[in-house]
Amino acid sequence: MVEITRLEPKEKKGLVVVITGHGKGKTTTALGIAVRACGHDMKVSIIQFMKGDLYAGEWDGVKKMNCRIELIATGKGFCGIQGNPYPYKEHRENAQEAIQIVHKKIEADPPDILILDEINNALHLKLVDLDQVLQIIEQKPSPMHLVLTGRDAHPRVIELADTVSEITEVKHAYRKGIEPQPGIDY
Amino acid sequence: MVEITRLEPKEKKGLVVVITGHGKGKTTTALGIAVRACGHDMKVSIIQFMKGDLYAGEWDGVKKMNCRIELIATGKGFCGIQGNPYPYKEHRENAQEAIQIVHKKIEADPPDILILDEINNALHLKLVDLDQVLQIIEQKPSPMHLVLTGRDAHPRVIELADTVSEITEVKHAYRKGIEPQPGIDY
Repeated sequence: MVEITRLEPKEKKGLVVVITGHGKGKTTTALGIAVRACGHDMKVSIIQFMKGDLYAGEWDGVKKMNCRIELIATGKGFCGIQGNPYPYKEHRENAQEAIQIVHKKIEADPPDILILDEINNALHLKLVDLDQVLQIIEQKPSPMHLVLTGRDAHPRVIELADTVSEITEVKHAYRKGIEPQPGIDY
Repeated sequence: MVEITRLEPKEKKGLVVVITGHGKGKTTTALGIAVRACGHDMKVSIIQFMKGDLYAGEWDGVKKMNCRIELIATGKGFCGIQGNPYPYKEHRENAQEAIQIVHKKIEADPPDILILDEINNALHLKLVDLDQVLQIIEQKPSPMHLVLTGRDAHPRVIELADTVSEITEVKHAYRKGIEPQPGIDY
């Protein structure tokens, strides 16, 4: 029989976690954090930047979770990606609205874990400003975990973070012509 | 208003996905895949190798998900890690039983996505054999996705995989003495 140990940190501390890199698994990691948090009955908010035009399984997945979890997709897809019909100005407006949603959430009813999906990428593409991201990090409630995902995380954001993982692509199915598959890729 | 596109691959293909590396986020990515799959109403089995002695939020998290998802923790913790009281022989026996569970699952009622959590690590530590892992990969039902997580993935496994992500640690909170935090670390 295996004896199960339950960890309980002496000090609870809200971490800043960055998941960056060009490999598959950044948003997926954020969703996995939500599953884990659900087990601990923690409250999770996921704000997706630059997503909203392409159906993703997680939109319905989180709804089916009997947990305190919300997901708000605020964007119009990946700015500058071939085929995306929206001009930069609209992407920027969307991302700026998302920043306001983040502030309202933190002020009104901060979750235990706030996940800002693709915000690193949004910063890199100048849809949000460095100062805006730094302000969120610096003013976050101390017990709240803040997770920032997206490729090309800003060095200053990495500097301020407690835990940073970089996901690199060793290989990806699409490079051999395999289309994105539901469940795995979206 | 954003127009939502729904991808639908012309050809559905079961992928072999490897999530490896020494950074935080491998199991977490696997759990995120389950959220995504849940949205698509896909069936997911997660078999955890070498885990079972330390409570993890995902054990209850997946139970709360109103989805076709099961998680079986088969192990007694990380073999060889300081403080783990179980001898190598017991870890090996556990991992060998897990391999049998995998075969039974595939034969009797294969899920849409089979996640073998920490199997790369179990192989590296010789709790399972390379031939056993290769056999699972080679004999997997064609539409089933197979996800193999854990550090130190075997080169031959990487070679056979369609998508491989390596998660590297840029920094981790525990290195500055911060204890593991529920929701984020377990």
